Amino acid sequence: MIINDQHYRTVWYNPSTNVVSMINQIKLPFEFEIVELKNYKETAEAIRNMTVRGAGAIGASAGFAMAQAFVENMDGAKEAKQFIEATRPTAVNLFYAVKKVFEAGIIGVSKAIEMAQSIANEDAESCRLIGEYGNELIQNKAGILTHCNAGWLAFVDYGSALSPVYAAQKSGKEPFVYVDETRPRAQGARLTAYELYNNKVEHRIIADNAAAFYMQKGAIDMVITGADRIAANGDTANKIGTLEKAIIAKEFGIPFYVAAPFSTIDFDTAEGSGIKIEERDENEVLYYEGPDDDGIIRNIRMASEGSHALNPAFDVTPAKYITGFITNRGIIKSSELEGYRSV
Amino acid sequence: MIINDQHYRTVWYNPSTNVVSMINQIKLPFEFEIVELKNYKETAEAIRNMTVRGAGAIGASAGFAMAQAFVENMDGAKEAKQFIEATRPTAVNLFYAVKKVFEAGIIGVSKAIEMAQSIANEDAESCRLIGEYGNELIQNKAGILTHCNAGWLAFVDYGSALSPVYAAQKSGKEPFVYVDETRPRAQGARLTAYELYNNKVEHRIIADNAAAFYMQKGAIDMVITGADRIAANGDTANKIGTLEKAIIAKEFGIPFYVAAPFSTIDFDTAEGSGIKIEERDENEVLYYEGPDDDGIIRNIRMASEGSHALNPAFDVTPAKYITGFITNRGIIKSSELEGYRSV
Repeated sequence: MIINDQHYRTVWYNPSTNVVSMINQIKLPFEFEIVELKNYKETAEAIRNMTVRGAGAIGASAGFAMAQAFVENMDGAKEAKQFIEATRPTAVNLFYAVKKVFEAGIIGVSKAIEMAQSIANEDAESCRLIGEYGNELIQNKAGILTHCNAGWLAFVDYGSALSPVYAAQKSGKEPFVYVDETRPRAQGARLTAYELYNNKVEHRIIADNAAAFYMQKGAIDMVITGADRIAANGDTANKIGTLEKAIIAKEFGIPFYVAAPFSTIDFDTAEGSGIKIEERDENEVLYYEGPDDDGIIRNIRMASEGSHALNPAFDVTPAKYITGFITNRGIIKSSELEGYRSV
Repeated sequence: MIINDQHYRTVWYNPSTNVVSMINQIKLPFEFEIVELKNYKETAEAIRNMTVRGAGAIGASAGFAMAQAFVENMDGAKEAKQFIEATRPTAVNLFYAVKKVFEAGIIGVSKAIEMAQSIANEDAESCRLIGEYGNELIQNKAGILTHCNAGWLAFVDYGSALSPVYAAQKSGKEPFVYVDETRPRAQGARLTAYELYNNKVEHRIIADNAAAFYMQKGAIDMVITGADRIAANGDTANKIGTLEKAIIAKEFGIPFYVAAPFSTIDFDTAEGSGIKIEERDENEVLYYEGPDDDGIIRNIRMASEGSHALNPAFDVTPAKYITGFITNRGIIKSSELEGYRSV
């Protein structure tokens, strides 16, 4: 990804200093800042407080955190593993990366470092492939709805849901993206819009409420979202509101694709009901932070005083609403997933 | 409605001073203020800038504005009529009230005043009846989803979508209301929550994205929304996002009711495609205003700089998604509407 004419990954690790560096996604899009995390606890805290967010970026960060833990203290690795796993219980990539690096670390610290770096590199390459496969589904001047941010900020590079859009743009198809604001944290309005603007892709932000309106008008040709976890039967956990978009897309006969690295598929989870949904702080709904006219970040109350909120972070979209999965191993239908179990 | 232990209507008119008074709904819920409008142009501007909003309250305000115009200058009444009608082209109640008061005013100024007062009184009485009919549909401890604000703030008193909730609460049923935030202007989080809190009705604000999640969980037993305009075939224009809620409710087999005074039905509009949709300023999506910790109102940027937004204010829900209309003349199904045309 290019920011201010320079290439960046979302997160990277320097073994010689044991420092993990990442783009601070809380401050985006209003400020571009790199934070440096000196030990595994700092990196875990960055995962928990969403300095880094998005399936792939969380996975790579968790792998790096696990490597940091081995560098810090071999004996404390098991405790560190649990500490890192507790930060975001819905993120399957986190568990995958921590497990892989932990197993490598038992052989030796250098193996842990190597594994963590390779997980990050594989994530970037997977996303590049998702873009190539997904691009085949995109028509010239297609209207594409996306929800939340599954762009390069959600991964190490390229992104999942937006990778096909970038590939389409590169091949001259001029896609037009309807960007769901994605309340409560507005990752669409903040991060997806930021990415698309920097990549010169035509787009408009819409209130989450407006998606059905544009589908009814015939302006949306396809929906592409990311995934936090895909169960073996194709049921998919993703940002709250994904279920709603999938249902309305089906009603209007619009294809609904989930783009994700193959590693997001969790064959140990038979179906969506087995996925634990994270309930987050009500203040994410009741308050909002952004810059005023002078660029000073203000935290304001959005809702009436005295009232409370409910804030489920994810929902589960049943497989029947999903046209297909755009993965680094090609386009896969729900019914075909089982065949990939041990491949 | 009771605010600070005192009874208020949303809007009222004093013919002896020719002043229209209304609750300033832009400042709610953070400040309770009554504004006084000294001539029809001020009242029209209050309608346009949403100092007053909601179908019934707009209708009553427009009727009062038309009466003010007659008091100001009989000869300018026709011009005033057009001026008032141009403020909110989607609101059928506005056209209805302005027409009625205009026709009465041709006979005499006192007739115009009488008609305007009677429109306001009828609106309050209609809403009281909507509450009585709607209450029959509500089970004990029902989970009810509502979108936007169709409470007493949207009418002269009682409200439409919330009137059955208040009636249910009064009769001891303890309803629990899921309040859609209703972006971009968040009338749910700001106004509906304010009303429910003041009336001690159990409720939680949710991001618009979370409605399907709670439907899937089985927590929502029914949906009640208001309407800005109902076509002769039952197609209903209402706040953006209503269409989305109606589709997902149908998918989960949850009854979806539209509560509105009978006068909201526009028999001159055959179907929804004949309803003009207002496109509002993109800054309603990109910016948000609310109080910071010190109670100072701040206007902050919600979205990435450089990106633009689309902001349709309403959508049209096809009749097939609507279980029934809760009106002051009882519960009516779409298929039965035609029979009421000339009744």
